[in-house]
Amino acid sequence: MTVRIDLNISLDGVAMPVGQTAENPMGEHWSRLVAAYVATRTFRERVLHDATGEGTAGVDERYAAGYFEGVGAEIMGAGMFGFHAYPDDPDWRGWWGDEPPFRAPVLVLTHRERAPIEFANGTRFEFLAVSPRVALERASELAGGADVRIGGGASLARDFLAAGLVDRLHVAIAPIVLGRGVRLWDDLREFESDFAITSEVAESGVIHVTFTR
Amino acid sequence: MTVRIDLNISLDGVAMPVGQTAENPMGEHWSRLVAAYVATRTFRERVLHDATGEGTAGVDERYAAGYFEGVGAEIMGAGMFGFHAYPDDPDWRGWWGDEPPFRAPVLVLTHRERAPIEFANGTRFEFLAVSPRVALERASELAGGADVRIGGGASLARDFLAAGLVDRLHVAIAPIVLGRGVRLWDDLREFESDFAITSEVAESGVIHVTFTR
Repeated sequence: MTVRIDLNISLDGVAMPVGQTAENPMGEHWSRLVAAYVATRTFRERVLHDATGEGTAGVDERYAAGYFEGVGAEIMGAGMFGFHAYPDDPDWRGWWGDEPPFRAPVLVLTHRERAPIEFANGTRFEFLAVSPRVALERASELAGGADVRIGGGASLARDFLAAGLVDRLHVAIAPIVLGRGVRLWDDLREFESDFAITSEVAESGVIHVTFTR
Repeated sequence: MTVRIDLNISLDGVAMPVGQTAENPMGEHWSRLVAAYVATRTFRERVLHDATGEGTAGVDERYAAGYFEGVGAEIMGAGMFGFHAYPDDPDWRGWWGDEPPFRAPVLVLTHRERAPIEFANGTRFEFLAVSPRVALERASELAGGADVRIGGGASLARDFLAAGLVDRLHVAIAPIVLGRGVRLWDDLREFESDFAITSEVAESGVIHVTFTR
């Protein structure tokens, strides 16, 4: 079982740009940050439910396909589920639509009490107020030997990295400088010393860096 | 005439680690940041005066050789000359030894008054308290049509970038997280929008990103 993180960040390490609103949940610069990922065949099919088979097929696509492979359970923060956008709506089912791309159990770390939400495609959101370590134990049970992904956002990913709970971190670095937002690397000084590191540049210009323990 | 910057930075954008002392002028993590550059044939020959011809000959060496090619004048900050280490020594001639690698006029931006210092190999340090724009005019005259390099440190490089005075920025990103120090990207939000960007990964794991206008 591997604990994995995949994140899109800017050259200056911003994983979550500023400016989130309910209408534009990821913030004003989100589209620039994830443009190459959103353009891939896998993202279009799996997240946007585009059945045309269109999308890029190069290095970015290889990582996009790998994103969903072998993941048996996911852990995400309240913001990634969408609680920050609709904090007071008890019927809010997240912004992932009727077919969330996870197709697996998802643990949402939040202090809000909420009954689990199940979707027909195998995605099941469960809401917990526990530490990263306890969440990981629970996710490992649910994953049944498959990988656990820490989906994000950036602060949650950083918490798991800082706690030494992550086996593989893949960052897709867009060559842009965002300047403001939540930075992945803060407080992670020398975290890489336990990891082997490989890098490659995609046709899009995105730099994929993978840390593996 | 091209105005160029070449800098070694960490994944989190630190161009100048903390911890500078007179004995270790670049700080405790400097050696990790520049390891791949220091290992190149060009650095060994040109900066360390190692005449054995040893050193790496791959992608890092290609950038190292390019570092010195076509530069007719250099601008650097007081820290890069070494004033911060020996602020009160009027005889201090910089920490570049008797054969500074520049072999060209070097403008040191500082409020200290100091007579120019000349070396036999063509390096001539001149000390000025002027704005980046004025320094660039003076350097352009001295360069006589060749390129002007903004040598650093990080704060000075950032000032020139923020003022829109730079035509080409090359960063060699070491895949390490330093966490503390002067970060290149601060206050440079979206500066890349005027530039074409290319990236490649060296054998050492260093990621070379070049912004060209």
